[in-house]
Amino acid sequence: MSSEIGHRLKLSVFGQSHGRAVGVVIDGLPAGEPVDEEALYRFMSRRAPGGALATKRKEADRPVILSGVADGHTAGSPLCAVIENTDTRSGDYANLADVPRPSHADYTARARYGDAVDMRGSGHFSGRLTAPLCIAGGIAKQLLARRDIYVGAHLLRVGGACDEPFPLRPTRELFDAVAQKELPVLSDEAGARMRAQIEAAQADADSVGGVIECAAVGLPAGLGSPMFDGIENRLAAALFGIPAVKGVEFGAGFAAAAMRGSRHNDPYIVENGRVMTSKNDAGGIVGGITTGMPVVVKCAMKPTPSIGKTQQSVRLSTMEPEELTVKGRHDPCVALRAVPVVEAVAAFTLLDILLEEFDHGAF
Amino acid sequence: MSSEIGHRLKLSVFGQSHGRAVGVVIDGLPAGEPVDEEALYRFMSRRAPGGALATKRKEADRPVILSGVADGHTAGSPLCAVIENTDTRSGDYANLADVPRPSHADYTARARYGDAVDMRGSGHFSGRLTAPLCIAGGIAKQLLARRDIYVGAHLLRVGGACDEPFPLRPTRELFDAVAQKELPVLSDEAGARMRAQIEAAQADADSVGGVIECAAVGLPAGLGSPMFDGIENRLAAALFGIPAVKGVEFGAGFAAAAMRGSRHNDPYIVENGRVMTSKNDAGGIVGGITTGMPVVVKCAMKPTPSIGKTQQSVRLSTMEPEELTVKGRHDPCVALRAVPVVEAVAAFTLLDILLEEFDHGAF
Amino acid sequence: MSSEIGHRLKLSVFGQSHGRAVGVVIDGLPAGEPVDEEALYRFMSRRAPGGALATKRKEADRPVILSGVADGHTAGSPLCAVIENTDTRSGDYANLADVPRPSHADYTARARYGDAVDMRGSGHFSGRLTAPLCIAGGIAKQLLARRDIYVGAHLLRVGGACDEPFPLRPTRELFDAVAQKELPVLSDEAGARMRAQIEAAQADADSVGGVIECAAVGLPAGLGSPMFDGIENRLAAALFGIPAVKGVEFGAGFAAAAMRGSRHNDPYIVENGRVMTSKNDAGGIVGGITTGMPVVVKCAMKPTPSIGKTQQSVRLSTMEPEELTVKGRHDPCVALRAVPVVEAVAAFTLLDILLEEFDHGAF
Amino acid sequence: MSSEIGHRLKLSVFGQSHGRAVGVVIDGLPAGEPVDEEALYRFMSRRAPGGALATKRKEADRPVILSGVADGHTAGSPLCAVIENTDTRSGDYANLADVPRPSHADYTARARYGDAVDMRGSGHFSGRLTAPLCIAGGIAKQLLARRDIYVGAHLLRVGGACDEPFPLRPTRELFDAVAQKELPVLSDEAGARMRAQIEAAQADADSVGGVIECAAVGLPAGLGSPMFDGIENRLAAALFGIPAVKGVEFGAGFAAAAMRGSRHNDPYIVENGRVMTSKNDAGGIVGGITTGMPVVVKCAMKPTPSIGKTQQSVRLSTMEPEELTVKGRHDPCVALRAVPVVEAVAAFTLLDILLEEFDHGAF
Repeated sequence: MSSEIGHRLKLSVFGQSHGRAVGVVIDGLPAGEPVDEEALYRFMSRRAPGGALATKRKEADRPVILSGVADGHTAGSPLCAVIENTDTRSGDYANLADVPRPSHADYTARARYGDAVDMRGSGHFSGRLTAPLCIAGGIAKQLLARRDIYVGAHLLRVGGACDEPFPLRPTRELFDAVAQKELPVLSDEAGARMRAQIEAAQADADSVGGVIECAAVGLPAGLGSPMFDGIENRLAAALFGIPAVKGVEFGAGFAAAAMRGSRHNDPYIVENGRVMTSKNDAGGIVGGITTGMPVVVKCAMKPTPSIGKTQQSVRLSTMEPEELTVKGRHDPCVALRAVPVVEAVAAFTLLDILLEEFDHGAF
Repeated sequence: MSSEIGHRLKLSVFGQSHGRAVGVVIDGLPAGEPVDEEALYRFMSRRAPGGALATKRKEADRPVILSGVADGHTAGSPLCAVIENTDTRSGDYANLADVPRPSHADYTARARYGDAVDMRGSGHFSGRLTAPLCIAGGIAKQLLARRDIYVGAHLLRVGGACDEPFPLRPTRELFDAVAQKELPVLSDEAGARMRAQIEAAQADADSVGGVIECAAVGLPAGLGSPMFDGIENRLAAALFGIPAVKGVEFGAGFAAAAMRGSRHNDPYIVENGRVMTSKNDAGGIVGGITTGMPVVVKCAMKPTPSIGKTQQSVRLSTMEPEELTVKGRHDPCVALRAVPVVEAVAAFTLLDILLEEFDHGAF
Repeated sequence: MSSEIGHRLKLSVFGQSHGRAVGVVIDGLPAGEPVDEEALYRFMSRRAPGGALATKRKEADRPVILSGVADGHTAGSPLCAVIENTDTRSGDYANLADVPRPSHADYTARARYGDAVDMRGSGHFSGRLTAPLCIAGGIAKQLLARRDIYVGAHLLRVGGACDEPFPLRPTRELFDAVAQKELPVLSDEAGARMRAQIEAAQADADSVGGVIECAAVGLPAGLGSPMFDGIENRLAAALFGIPAVKGVEFGAGFAAAAMRGSRHNDPYIVENGRVMTSKNDAGGIVGGITTGMPVVVKCAMKPTPSIGKTQQSVRLSTMEPEELTVKGRHDPCVALRAVPVVEAVAAFTLLDILLEEFDHGAF
Repeated sequence: MSSEIGHRLKLSVFGQSHGRAVGVVIDGLPAGEPVDEEALYRFMSRRAPGGALATKRKEADRPVILSGVADGHTAGSPLCAVIENTDTRSGDYANLADVPRPSHADYTARARYGDAVDMRGSGHFSGRLTAPLCIAGGIAKQLLARRDIYVGAHLLRVGGACDEPFPLRPTRELFDAVAQKELPVLSDEAGARMRAQIEAAQADADSVGGVIECAAVGLPAGLGSPMFDGIENRLAAALFGIPAVKGVEFGAGFAAAAMRGSRHNDPYIVENGRVMTSKNDAGGIVGGITTGMPVVVKCAMKPTPSIGKTQQSVRLSTMEPEELTVKGRHDPCVALRAVPVVEAVAAFTLLDILLEEFDHGAF
């Protein structure tokens, strides 16, 4: 296993940044599910480059579905979709094989695969590979939505600027409203401060990290398992597949470490005849199993490692120190474009779990 | 999959807290590896209850190896080890089926498995199930140590009290020194403050959360994969299997979100003829692949949900609100006893990864 | 993976023939299913040694359930059951490490695991390891029976003696009747000829092979998948796990190679308002998916490799030819005792498939 | 899992017969391996339609590699290759949705996936999906050949006509010679009889079954595992993924059932300083582990279910009996074109096993 994940619903991602195409195979989708390609394209455009705050690389990112869909519905066979790579300038990356970028996979990819690894444009490690993740997740979101399960995300933090967290029960409308913004945030004032942080980093030929908060509403209680097959295990295993994610926490997460139990525990209440909790520090998961409250997960994204500032590296062929100044087009803040990617990966994983638990997609 | 994990080295955990025994099957160990049962027992005693700061439940926790070891060496067949349950008082848990403890699996286990689930003493969700994890991890640590790979952990935080982090290159000696302390910390002064936090919570019939930092030294560069089979994915998927873990981060983790790239990136240097980094905010992992620096992971542990303080719950049979006061023996701080468990799960996972990458255990 | 199989329902087998115990962990059973230990014991006694036609080794083979069952019902947590090894005489096997038995794992186990492998009594390769398979399959059969799915098997062939095949629609009553016979056959006359073949082989210090036919009735149409996750793939992968199985075929199997399509194709008919076929050369599976007709699989079992006749081998330490005469207690026909094992493995695999397809065991 | 298989080397097949393209993703290939696309194309042309004995459908079957190869070498990232579908005439299949072809997946696919399943041209169940299997296996064969491991196959039987079996030690030259024939057989006289059988079936608007024998030479002893992860389990699980395979046997296989142990056991001998056996009824596998002798597996292929002869079926919408006469282009003997497919699937599976056992492809 490497670029492949899932139990009942399997995802296999392929492609290098400067190869012929990137794409994905999704195996295990129920048959007869409508696939709205326009809606998928709109979802994918949320991660597409092009804004003032993003890389200058232009790519249409329009997926072509090669199999698995017939007459607008899933066909019961594996779905393959590809996106051709058109705007690649490999020359920018020539030197990096011998003088690796700090905190970038240049060095570790070679340590792992040897010199034959194709790292032009960061190869298979490129953020471009999040486009196929969005294909898979975008389709998963369509299946979930038809079952009244919605997944949304927002930028919770960029550098020192913080958005407010999702409310206790985020709605589909809130998710939609956030998704339409250039900066996907709840508080536009916070968004303005984030924008300032990104622009300042960009102006300094630097980058900045961030945190993405993602929520899923509409999941039933009783989904998941204790120990190694819980919701947290599954989501974390998938979310760490997004390049630059360095931390994953659920509910209060690391803040729980500073709490007492009497404060952290979520009191049970009855609302509309259903068991709920009056707050959600558990992030909707206890013992690996959903409580019926929204599942809430946060991902820490490191700052883009490719920065214009001069950095200390080593020339591998001589083992001599060498200063490195990276050229090329890079996002000053990967967290910004990763918001729909986190949604996509969470949606895909939750759909996989639901398909495992329920009969032939009949949930 | 549920209580089972691993690729080449498989772990299958079984047992309920108040059943006949808990135990583990480990499938995939190379043959001919010495298994030092006394050393394993010493390792396991680090998580055993009994200290003033832990639950009053007494269990010998001495594993009996049923298979897979012959003449003190692994036999090339699956290893099964069990620990009998002897000191169980199920009466303490009778009421909790109908009035679930907040933030405890009482409710979600029923939502998942129905009323037939055995939740006496928290059943399969009990912290007692970390004993078989320690069997597996304790044996993994022995195999790793013979290859000069060492895994150690300490309490980084309890409530508001913080230990200092591991140094850039922790040594085996440091790991051993920490492991021998009643409170596994680097700074005894920090330990004293942690102890005060735990005792204060206990005095208040309350509990407190914590953070565990774990490091693995001696791993080669080039271990792991991009995307879904990276070191971070694998470790996170396993570590979230430890009850009460609510967050996992590598290197700077969530702190990276507040950083610029120029600060977060780890400069490459040459030391003793090898490529190193002068700091380790990456936690020894870039692009899912080891850099050769120590792998550093932190786990956030929520406070024990079972507390003596009266809490708000719901009587499920009537759907009426009901106050709950939990009796029984519980750790005021699960993070304390979880330190060797985090080591165990990390060691097991890293050994699995190493066995996948290298020929028949010949690494 | 090695002695572990299953998707949603996982089986992990452990033990060596002359170790402390053999056993199994079953992870993924639905909660609340009655487990009839007496019925399980009766099922297991069908494979237990003791008859005049079997090995002289005596073992009670009474499994002890360590976890996963509470108050006679599955508890929602992994089930572990063990059988202690009591009657072992390791001395019989001392020479075989250096002079391996032809067509026995003595040599290949060493090639795979090195000299440390515990091969006393054939270690983990022993037919004794089919006892834990019967625990798992015996419990699976109970779950299936409560859903009106029945699995049965008989000896179709021993050496040159052939039983008649199962009728088009074998019934539970037929399965039960066969299971109660000392030689599990349809035709007692065929059984007498088989017995003669076994006794003749035994008298010659030799052994003889056989074929087992297994059928499952009551499965719905539409179970399985094309390509790699079909009923045939799953059953074959599991059935080849039974020691001595060298061939697996479904329906007409190898006989289909000699047929024309017009003879092999099973005509569709309507019976009792359901689509059926008027014969079943497909063995109930087309395109990897059940047709609703009985699933019929045959397993070829090689003759027991351990025979008393003198054979040609090699002394590995000197690489000199050496004649070998095997002592010890061995079944003259492993196929005989393997009949319930084939049932068990088929039942377990089919239950796994059903649990994957249907909601929480609600099929 | 469905159209996906493999442990360390993963294969994910996609496509429907009359969709846009069929293809495959291969995840886990070592980096830096030469990929000879012309040799791959030559290999694939062995299964391509076009001969007088095969379907009249014309397809170039020239794979386009979208990712995973750079400068003629594997790039360390997943390889995706696709073949466009160009010559499709879906009209031929319109009636079959309601009146399913006997022993064809028309009915079971609907039972499994519902009416939305795309079964034009047999959809994902089509023999066309063996083209991507040949891509994967053709590349695997190149990697194996560079390590002096060769996989070859021949038609052992068609209807009543039988080829001679492979010799005890088939050579690469023999494999090559067989592969170049229009009918891949050892004995051209046998080939002539097979041809007569196929032509006679074709003349009768009928089809005929066959057996394919496949051998792999050059594998080391000690590869594989007992119980569920043995060579037989792995090969069988994969080979049953080829449409129309109804039986799989190793070495003597079903013939072993009629043998005594003294005849079936393979005597050990020493040849050129290595342990060998003087015959190979074990098919190179004992206890799930390779002996170092050639691995020999046979696959029974049923006759093509789509025949021109009128057959008995049922109109599903009315549940009335209906006679069916199938139109369209079909191979009279699928076994013929399946010979390279069996090679491909065996080669892929063996490479997966080798990559699991050995360090980073360094075997």
